[in-house]
Amino acid sequence: MRKAAIIGIGCTKIGELWNKSLKDLLAESATASLNEAGIDRIDAIYVGNMGSEVVQDQSNLGALVCDCLGIDNVPALRIEAAGASGAAALAEGVKSVSSGSAECVLVAGAEKMTDAVPTEASRVMMTGEDPEYVAYSGISAAGLHALITRLYSDKYEVSPDQIAMMPVNAHKNATNNEFAQFHNLIEVDDVLHSGLVSDPIRLLECASLSDGAASLIICPLETARKFSDSPVEILASEIATDSLSLPERQDLLTFNASTWATSRALANAKIKIEDVNVLEVHDEAAITGIMAIEDMGFAQKGRGAAFVADGNIAIEGTLPTNTMGGFKGRGNPVGA
Amino acid sequence: MRKAAIIGIGCTKIGELWNKSLKDLLAESATASLNEAGIDRIDAIYVGNMGSEVVQDQSNLGALVCDCLGIDNVPALRIEAAGASGAAALAEGVKSVSSGSAECVLVAGAEKMTDAVPTEASRVMMTGEDPEYVAYSGISAAGLHALITRLYSDKYEVSPDQIAMMPVNAHKNATNNEFAQFHNLIEVDDVLHSGLVSDPIRLLECASLSDGAASLIICPLETARKFSDSPVEILASEIATDSLSLPERQDLLTFNASTWATSRALANAKIKIEDVNVLEVHDEAAITGIMAIEDMGFAQKGRGAAFVADGNIAIEGTLPTNTMGGFKGRGNPVGA
Repeated sequence: MRKAAIIGIGCTKIGELWNKSLKDLLAESATASLNEAGIDRIDAIYVGNMGSEVVQDQSNLGALVCDCLGIDNVPALRIEAAGASGAAALAEGVKSVSSGSAECVLVAGAEKMTDAVPTEASRVMMTGEDPEYVAYSGISAAGLHALITRLYSDKYEVSPDQIAMMPVNAHKNATNNEFAQFHNLIEVDDVLHSGLVSDPIRLLECASLSDGAASLIICPLETARKFSDSPVEILASEIATDSLSLPERQDLLTFNASTWATSRALANAKIKIEDVNVLEVHDEAAITGIMAIEDMGFAQKGRGAAFVADGNIAIEGTLPTNTMGGFKGRGNPVGA
Repeated sequence: MRKAAIIGIGCTKIGELWNKSLKDLLAESATASLNEAGIDRIDAIYVGNMGSEVVQDQSNLGALVCDCLGIDNVPALRIEAAGASGAAALAEGVKSVSSGSAECVLVAGAEKMTDAVPTEASRVMMTGEDPEYVAYSGISAAGLHALITRLYSDKYEVSPDQIAMMPVNAHKNATNNEFAQFHNLIEVDDVLHSGLVSDPIRLLECASLSDGAASLIICPLETARKFSDSPVEILASEIATDSLSLPERQDLLTFNASTWATSRALANAKIKIEDVNVLEVHDEAAITGIMAIEDMGFAQKGRGAAFVADGNIAIEGTLPTNTMGGFKGRGNPVGA
């Protein structure tokens, strides 16, 4: 299979964007990515989105993007995998190019969560769990994260100030990202004194559910230099699925899917884990970012919080992590 | 790219399945397809579904299927393209096998629409349109079909009894499909005297929104005979997108996407349109089936209703169509 490369990107400001519709956001980011790539041909479109059917009464986002851009006669699909929808759309887009079935693919991700009232937003996030076993009990996503945080802290004797370094790092990095929702620096004390969301999780450990869109143009590496002076080669893009429900997992404190996907990605990229020098992890809650760092193999199980607290994930650290600000600092427009 | 083949299928009964959950339906059809294929390896899972986020508070159907089947460490995604979700999931699955990125793929489609109250079901179907331009006007999917039916009938001087032959054929074929929702024969007079849904469309022209699931196992053609004595070779699987909204279309009576996708599929399959001897079209309303027959090139524009009324689409006709009963006779579990 041939290699794929990114030749254009587009991103909207992330935040509470009351004056823009989901369609506006998709059009803005997709147009920016097409302009940067300077191409006039798209063979396939993949759109990552989690909740627009509930929040905007809008499905069929593939066709919606076609309408926005005046593109027709291409396959255009929405990819949904809950909080992983955007990354999953990227993986499908890469596969499409690397397999030779498309020469130029638009991958877009978008979400507009602030149109939802808070109870609805919470309900949307829980659709990613198994409703029969878990969601109908009334627990929220923050509640699930709280259970994991408490268990993790007890089992590995981790203190809240260690975990708090995850969002502190995110906010610091977000100040360098013009598109980020939050540009305020926070300290460990700010996190520990912010309001309780779901004991022991506090407000400043939780990423905000936001509005925004992001787009990429992917083409084969061999032709990428025709369109871009600095194409980004995609060495690998892998996804894996573990048990859906928390109660079905072998270990509540391990995301097996992160381990499996990382292992396949490293193998496909033909690199070692030591070769990785920038990391982006899913920090919807601080604990999920810390667990990802462990499960991907960058820290021993139970040592992730200390790894974070010791400054390894800072821009000047051994493994700069969530350099765009993470979900916590950039904001979390789920599908984007 | 190598050829792909179907080596196992599984289908649930279609209908009002009050005693089965969406998960039950997915598990039943997927297990049946895996058993028929006799394989113990799946490399990727694609699930087609339109409305479960709204109707069942359930997204993340890829991971849900993994949970049902005890499969992990594979990419598992939901594909959504409104009423085309199931076919789009199939196209992605075929691409995955033919490109060499997977050896064995499970494609599942499922929907459980009867959990929704009628107004909610109607709202779900309209999420496939553009809400800003069309859905918020209050028109329903049946209303859009009614506008098209009236325009078609006026422009091409077609009578209701010609259009009615579409559902009459569907119900006749459904009597041979053990999984079909409806096993009652209907006549043209029954259609013309059934209740008005949206003038001029009557009840027996409209497919029912149903519950059900269907699954396929796909592997490379070259290895298919190891698993099946009668693998079904997939010559091509193509999708295309036209303008999303009815008011944005160049011609309200033409589905350009059908023309484009058919043209690409015939080219990829290296066959001529005359070589096609069985056809399945989307007959959510009778008029959409008739327009598909025209736009795919099997009848001249405006002559589709006469083509249908003249008996060409019957099992013993020149082009047997919707032999499983169509959406009208089999029932329409959208993503399946």
